[in-house]
Amino acid sequence: MPIIVSLDERSYPIYISPQSLHRTGELLIDIGGKGKVLIVSNPVIFRHYGEIVFTALITLGFEVQTCILPAGERYKNLKTIERIYQHCAQYRLERRSTIIALGGGVIGDMAGFAAATWLRGINFVQIPTTLLAMVDAAIGGKTGVNHAQGKNLIGAFYQPKAVVIDPNVLQTLPVREYRSGMAEVIKYGVIWEPELFNLLESQPQLSQYRYLATQDLEKILYFSCQTKATIVSQDEREGGIRALLNYGHTIGHAIETVTQYRYYTHGEAVALGMIAAGDIAVQLGWWSKDEQSRQKQLIANVKLPIQLKPDIDLEAIKLALNWDKKVVQGAVRFILPKKIGQAAMTDQVPPDVIHQALICLIAQ
Amino acid sequence: MPIIVSLDERSYPIYISPQSLHRTGELLIDIGGKGKVLIVSNPVIFRHYGEIVFTALITLGFEVQTCILPAGERYKNLKTIERIYQHCAQYRLERRSTIIALGGGVIGDMAGFAAATWLRGINFVQIPTTLLAMVDAAIGGKTGVNHAQGKNLIGAFYQPKAVVIDPNVLQTLPVREYRSGMAEVIKYGVIWEPELFNLLESQPQLSQYRYLATQDLEKILYFSCQTKATIVSQDEREGGIRALLNYGHTIGHAIETVTQYRYYTHGEAVALGMIAAGDIAVQLGWWSKDEQSRQKQLIANVKLPIQLKPDIDLEAIKLALNWDKKVVQGAVRFILPKKIGQAAMTDQVPPDVIHQALICLIAQ
Ligand SMILES: NC(=O)c1ccc[n+]([C@@H]2O[C@H](COP(=O)([O-])OP(=O)(O)OC[C@H]3O[C@@H](n4cnc5c(N)ncnc54)[C@H](O)[C@@H]3O)[C@@H](O)[C@H]2O)c1
Ligand SMILES: NC(=O)c1ccc[n+]([C@@H]2O[C@H](COP(=O)([O-])OP(=O)(O)OC[C@H]3O[C@@H](n4cnc5c(N)ncnc54)[C@H](O)[C@@H]3O)[C@@H](O)[C@H]2O)c1
Ligand SMILES: [Zn+2]
Ligand SMILES: [Zn+2]
Repeated sequence: MPIIVSLDERSYPIYISPQSLHRTGELLIDIGGKGKVLIVSNPVIFRHYGEIVFTALITLGFEVQTCILPAGERYKNLKTIERIYQHCAQYRLERRSTIIALGGGVIGDMAGFAAATWLRGINFVQIPTTLLAMVDAAIGGKTGVNHAQGKNLIGAFYQPKAVVIDPNVLQTLPVREYRSGMAEVIKYGVIWEPELFNLLESQPQLSQYRYLATQDLEKILYFSCQTKATIVSQDEREGGIRALLNYGHTIGHAIETVTQYRYYTHGEAVALGMIAAGDIAVQLGWWSKDEQSRQKQLIANVKLPIQLKPDIDLEAIKLALNWDKKVVQGAVRFILPKKIGQAAMTDQVPPDVIHQALICLIAQ
Repeated sequence: MPIIVSLDERSYPIYISPQSLHRTGELLIDIGGKGKVLIVSNPVIFRHYGEIVFTALITLGFEVQTCILPAGERYKNLKTIERIYQHCAQYRLERRSTIIALGGGVIGDMAGFAAATWLRGINFVQIPTTLLAMVDAAIGGKTGVNHAQGKNLIGAFYQPKAVVIDPNVLQTLPVREYRSGMAEVIKYGVIWEPELFNLLESQPQLSQYRYLATQDLEKILYFSCQTKATIVSQDEREGGIRALLNYGHTIGHAIETVTQYRYYTHGEAVALGMIAAGDIAVQLGWWSKDEQSRQKQLIANVKLPIQLKPDIDLEAIKLALNWDKKVVQGAVRFILPKKIGQAAMTDQVPPDVIHQALICLIAQ
């Protein structure tokens, strides 16, 4: 049974199962797809999985074309979107045609934006191939690209018609990408799903895909996608509860900014951000020391960083936090855990508490 | 009392009143606007009305910036959208900031698309300055730009927060633009609103703005906007009844295509398309000859064309119709009148009936 993202007439299923890549054709038929399909991917991913998806569609009578974009976050911009539009135009995609994103969050965000805006919206299907895309980017309808001035400044809310997850594709994912995705998985455990947290804790090793039993990995994906689906179903456009997903991201973003998105991956920064947020929660008396050290243990087990590199400028991080603050014209907002499986928002964290959490993040 | 476009939480008012331009500030406050405002316009329109709007906003405490784009349909493309994004970035527009479109359909479609996609959607207000934009383009949430391959291929559905119509601005509108807008007004009379049709018929002269009494013009705007609002409220994304708005547009588009959007304005082509559609309806026994000639009389009164220029290639028009048909993979679709104030869709028009209608459009 697929997980359902419930959004009235925009509801859609998330299929999680090994070999689902081979069933792309059936699944597309199930959701009413027909005619033309444009697969958007990058050279690495397409080399691994392109043929499987292509064949699965062709054999069921779809008219399949491909659009292979250069790999990398630095190509996530409007110029690359124009390349997708060129393909849409050339193959004369129609309202009822489908764009399939076969790739990580970068491909998914771009293909989704193109699907949202070609003919004011055509069918869109996500086949996420990174752990992060599976549990996060592919679910919830945020699409878009970067602008010279900042990340994801241009975009649209546009829900896919389906998300197709084949856990097997993770076997070729670079280990650092896998670990980054695990940061978001841990996040779901802390803010929402204690069963997921327990499942993660019960694993002897978490730091590589191959250490996980197939069934456990599927359960982890299931809990994670279910959590994101539930939250998005309750708050499609980020007016309320969806803010919980920013757990670990306040300080995480500041770290990414200060290190210019170069030193840490997103997941690594989020891991550090979660440790800092946990520390703040402990200082404020929201959270127990014990649960904070369980969180830290889990992060360490994944081999995600638990300390900031020592040469980092704490003042720069605080400045970056305040820049964010200026943008929302208010105080810095944090999502803080109360117990495993529950978190809440506050903008009442005293500066010295933030300072202390940052100090601990370096020193200890 | 404003007209309301009813779309649940996306509902919005259409204000029609002389001098409403001067009240832009109050109206923006009414709909919860605050902080930064970016006015998007073109040099001609901004010269006439920019200062009024600018001052109205500044005096009420808004932080106002402007983005003046080159005039003309040929600039309605992604490159120009990037210019708007540059302004959004430079002035650091926030989620709750507002983009105001001050202009005709070209400005409205572009500013709307930028508002739809900057930060995945910020506030948007339409101040239409052409008759066409007032009664059509500014209402209903279609935004977008052209692509080398075709018109309006890139876009989004994105509703404004308000539409502010000041009939006085029409006094500077070139007469040909005014008449083009009147084609859509007549369309509403034929497909939906008999009172509008009667009101138009009761005017001794229709061919210039200055012939209309202020009150009659306001009523004409009111009926027209009300019609579009009602239809859009029932069918936001063009799955059903909104197709009625294509009355006159099937053959109208074919005429525009064949004459490469150069010889006729959109409204002129639609006027010819309505006459042809009316003729088809008469041939099929859907409509009375008498009402068809009343429609033709009205079109003539506006000084819109009632015959095709003689050197046009009928076969090319039929080809253009069939290209459209290939795109929707079916027969050519027509909206045909049944009586004044009522129309319906059909894809059952025999080719010879179309042929006959086109012959009549040239010869008569
Ligand atoms: N839309 C959302 O809600 C949302 C949420 C989070 C992140 N994002 C976006 O997602 C992007 C990051 O996504 P990501 O972490 O998936 O990175 P990514 O898409 O850049 O992929 C990471 C790398 O892994 C490679 N790769 C992907 N799948 C592979 C596989 N199965 N085997 C081998 N190599 C593979 C890719 O080629 C790439 O080099 C960012 O742009 C971020 O803004 C979006
Ligand atoms: N979004 C929709 O639902 C929708 C519907 C219909 C048409 N459109 C689009 O609208 C566009 C056509 O719009 P339009 O007919 O308003 O043309 P336009 O926006 O090009 O304006 C026509 C001309 O009039 C000038 N002008 C505008 N207002 C003026 C004023 N008050 N005084 C003096 N000059 C003025 C403009 O500078 C321009 O040169 C097309 O791109 C079409 O695709 C959109
Ligand atoms: Zn994240
Ligand atoms: Zn029209």
